[in-house]
Amino acid sequence: MSQTTRAQPGDSTTLAQPGASGGFADDRPLRDALDRALDAIRDRSHFSAFPESPSPRVYGEEAAPAGLAAFGTWQGTDFPLRTAPGASGAVATERSPFGIGLDIRYPRVATTGLDDLLATAQAGIPQWRDAGPDTRVDVALEILAALHKRVFELANAVMATTGQAFVMAFQAGGTHALDRALEAVAYAYAEMTRHPATALWERPGRGEPVRIEKTFTVVPRGVAVVIGCTTFPTWNSYPGLFASLVTGNPVVVKPHPGAVLPLAITVQVCQEVLAARGFDPALVTLAAEADGDGITRDLATHPAVRIVDFTGSAEFGDWLESHATQAQVYTEKSGVNPVVIDSTHAFRGLVGNLAFTLALYSGQMCTTSQVIFVPADGIDTDEGHKSFREVGAGLAAAVDKLLSDEGRAVELLGAIVNDAVLNRVEGSTALGGEVVLESRAVRHPVHADAVVRTPAILALDADDVAVFGRECFGPVTFLVRTRDTDEALALVRRLGHERGAMTAAVYSTSERVLAAAREVALDVGVALSENLTDGVYVNQSAAFSDFHGTGANPAANASFVDAAYVAGRFRIIQSRRHAPE
Amino acid sequence: MSQTTRAQPGDSTTLAQPGASGGFADDRPLRDALDRALDAIRDRSHFSAFPESPSPRVYGEEAAPAGLAAFGTWQGTDFPLRTAPGASGAVATERSPFGIGLDIRYPRVATTGLDDLLATAQAGIPQWRDAGPDTRVDVALEILAALHKRVFELANAVMATTGQAFVMAFQAGGTHALDRALEAVAYAYAEMTRHPATALWERPGRGEPVRIEKTFTVVPRGVAVVIGCTTFPTWNSYPGLFASLVTGNPVVVKPHPGAVLPLAITVQVCQEVLAARGFDPALVTLAAEADGDGITRDLATHPAVRIVDFTGSAEFGDWLESHATQAQVYTEKSGVNPVVIDSTHAFRGLVGNLAFTLALYSGQMCTTSQVIFVPADGIDTDEGHKSFREVGAGLAAAVDKLLSDEGRAVELLGAIVNDAVLNRVEGSTALGGEVVLESRAVRHPVHADAVVRTPAILALDADDVAVFGRECFGPVTFLVRTRDTDEALALVRRLGHERGAMTAAVYSTSERVLAAAREVALDVGVALSENLTDGVYVNQSAAFSDFHGTGANPAANASFVDAAYVAGRFRIIQSRRHAPE
Repeated sequence: MSQTTRAQPGDSTTLAQPGASGGFADDRPLRDALDRALDAIRDRSHFSAFPESPSPRVYGEEAAPAGLAAFGTWQGTDFPLRTAPGASGAVATERSPFGIGLDIRYPRVATTGLDDLLATAQAGIPQWRDAGPDTRVDVALEILAALHKRVFELANAVMATTGQAFVMAFQAGGTHALDRALEAVAYAYAEMTRHPATALWERPGRGEPVRIEKTFTVVPRGVAVVIGCTTFPTWNSYPGLFASLVTGNPVVVKPHPGAVLPLAITVQVCQEVLAARGFDPALVTLAAEADGDGITRDLATHPAVRIVDFTGSAEFGDWLESHATQAQVYTEKSGVNPVVIDSTHAFRGLVGNLAFTLALYSGQMCTTSQVIFVPADGIDTDEGHKSFREVGAGLAAAVDKLLSDEGRAVELLGAIVNDAVLNRVEGSTALGGEVVLESRAVRHPVHADAVVRTPAILALDADDVAVFGRECFGPVTFLVRTRDTDEALALVRRLGHERGAMTAAVYSTSERVLAAAREVALDVGVALSENLTDGVYVNQSAAFSDFHGTGANPAANASFVDAAYVAGRFRIIQSRRHAPE
Repeated sequence: MSQTTRAQPGDSTTLAQPGASGGFADDRPLRDALDRALDAIRDRSHFSAFPESPSPRVYGEEAAPAGLAAFGTWQGTDFPLRTAPGASGAVATERSPFGIGLDIRYPRVATTGLDDLLATAQAGIPQWRDAGPDTRVDVALEILAALHKRVFELANAVMATTGQAFVMAFQAGGTHALDRALEAVAYAYAEMTRHPATALWERPGRGEPVRIEKTFTVVPRGVAVVIGCTTFPTWNSYPGLFASLVTGNPVVVKPHPGAVLPLAITVQVCQEVLAARGFDPALVTLAAEADGDGITRDLATHPAVRIVDFTGSAEFGDWLESHATQAQVYTEKSGVNPVVIDSTHAFRGLVGNLAFTLALYSGQMCTTSQVIFVPADGIDTDEGHKSFREVGAGLAAAVDKLLSDEGRAVELLGAIVNDAVLNRVEGSTALGGEVVLESRAVRHPVHADAVVRTPAILALDADDVAVFGRECFGPVTFLVRTRDTDEALALVRRLGHERGAMTAAVYSTSERVLAAAREVALDVGVALSENLTDGVYVNQSAAFSDFHGTGANPAANASFVDAAYVAGRFRIIQSRRHAPE
């Protein structure tokens, strides 16, 4: 990588701005984006390679309708892949939360097909390994560019399968997912190239020095499996997929039956680029199954599988960690995400920020706050002292205001992804406590079949830890009355160790309290947002700067993306011989 | 770390030369050694921070007798540690292969003491974590310097417990172990500091940019356990011990009952330096047990234990990998190390090199070659064609010549570490095949009770894979007749995948054969030595340049030392807040 082509600090941020030139959209050299990514993961400054605004000013007038049309061509068809080893028959498992017709049939992989699938995947290893880190990274960057060209199609696929509103699907399912992928590629590139490919070793001695020529080759671990989830099929799968692929491993993508299309498109693009570059397209394959086929356990524990990336339930993630011991297992599971409110200089900002967090995608994010601790005596604010009840009322009002316009509300809330979430929100009033804000159904102006729900907020006491201390995925938030902030922090510590957390937040005007919250966050091992009031939300994490998950508590055993996430995906094999005279 | 204090390339090698000034011995700033280590792990050039020659010209006339005297003070005593949490009573388990009197009593940790031990170890975490990477690395460097000051004492302890001859014990057990420790510290330092501790993140927008101040803190995983082995108690334990310690984890050192003293001295030094710097000495503790106490399984699977480093049998290493799933497990086990002889330009160099490898420490190294494949039709050499029998005879003659002087022989062979190895060599003739070289007993001129044996070489056929295809730890080598080199490489591939290997070697004058051997080595995932004839031996690996173990085959799941070895020992916890206006 040439130093001379590296951008100056500060340049990089222009790439992602609406209307700005640059980025993959303009075919700026792919390597330049990688260089900027390498800078960003080092200095943790702002960077984005894929413009996040779907505006016609950025992508042109034709991009959105063309993407929608491309998505439409898959509806009711057999989805074409270049190769589908191990597959027999077809399966159509998706049901859109928006009621968008899908009925797309994918090649079905049953347990009986796994040996064939994995043997075919393995066959491509030597050529892919021998291509070396630079070529593999080039191919990965080409795949990202090709996926970016189909980003509107991808956004429609993510929207239709997950229930995310369009702009969110475009960003979280499209450009931000691509940024996370590029981040993983950059980390992997940095790790693979930290040693030279060859080195001369000279040991001085009494006579002639001993001179040894050494060669260091990156080799893959073996076949990698990426297990997708139903809510963020691309964002959560891309880091593992691309980290494994560029380090030389074939990748089997096992989508959630509810969200196959975004990953099927991804696999299709991977296979096309691989084939165009002369590599075995079976280096990236799809393993779609019918609900109930249950291939995942057999796949993840197959001796040929050496890496597993998983996003999903704590229960299955824990099972993988303790059973797929032949593989390196990376999990993103779930936890109980806390917010501690102690005091604030900006009450309106506080409730506004939290309201957005609770509303976005109806709280169906692993990063959504679930428990908000408030002292029983209330809090000091810039608007004077507010009682526990007033804090709740303020938060409820902020949510109501944010979602008062139904047309705007659905663009934040999206749709409820499945009946399990719906049942949870409908059953929330039976959990006890006091209803601070009732969940209400919202009519979707376009998709009449969509189930759209606003967040529910329930007030509980600190003693009700059996209720609020379990993950309640979806738009149900618990406002918990504590004796004081110390008790709140003690509960954060306890739940963090027992249940884990993907995010945590604190609001306080006291540096002493903030320091105490940081100490708890370090002990629990959870990322902390302090006094966020505007522009950034606790449930958001930015590629190249924010680490998503920490691997330090039960909610996840890995982080997007750090060195530990990539370094174990390959090995270095050396050879040595006497250097020529 | 200041760039300006970094040494120029080439300087570094002077540190390790006998008689040269510099190195830790001269109190050159410790950070300078770290800087040089950081350069070396990047460019893989020659480096050593701890002079490997025990010569008085390097260490002075007093060092050797003082070290022996210091070792002598422990014989027959209760070994003093500053703190021994969880211990009750004492245990003396060591029996010297040289017959050197030990009878040293160590605090005994039984299964009932583990909760106490681990709770005490955990208590030191916050202070040690908050000290930060630079301070922790400084403390680790001080520990290494303090251990280096006691290197002659350490060498005597390693010699007495393992059966290594003195110079080998000084190097492998002393200076090379310290180099491997420094290597681990350097890798950990590089990984911990690849991100800034704080960063400003600015996202441009239509109005004012969003400005977020981010803090990134390295936090440990939890308590680390290092399980030592009987043959290389320090060399194999130091990388894990120091990698875990500098990344913030308390370390429990669980020595092999046969080789406690070298690690007890190590723990003593760690506790002294920690206490002198104001840290909890219980951050490094010893867990000595009686043979049969069997605390290791309970210790390694304890929920508080989050890292396990193990060196030892394949059986127990595999057990740890599949059972200690609550922890990150790093194993160095064992395999079947092959040599493929196809042809050579330097027959004398070939047999001389292999003879040294087989003789050193009576082959009681995980890197010693076990199977030497030779074509049935013999090989072309610079001395003309040699039949299979002539190759065997040449190798046997080289071993005989190397060990012809008994006084010199024992300084290479050391002593047989235990009865299991002795039984193996005595039972080798019953394995079948033809005796190429008989093992003979050698009288030790100083230690009359020492059991010293020369290597045995047995000729077998490729069909006898059930015999030569299992690890036979100790001085037994199999010379295996293959149809041709292709069959040899196929056997290397098969055994590599099935049994694993720590080392592999090939001798050939054909670049085509060398390329084929490299391909097999990459596929198996084993380090390859090509045509080594002088100065470097297949069983040796040099810190900062050679990777020891690869993690890519069943012989080990980790490597000394690569990024994967250190990156998973800590986590990064971020906090973020709006930046001040």
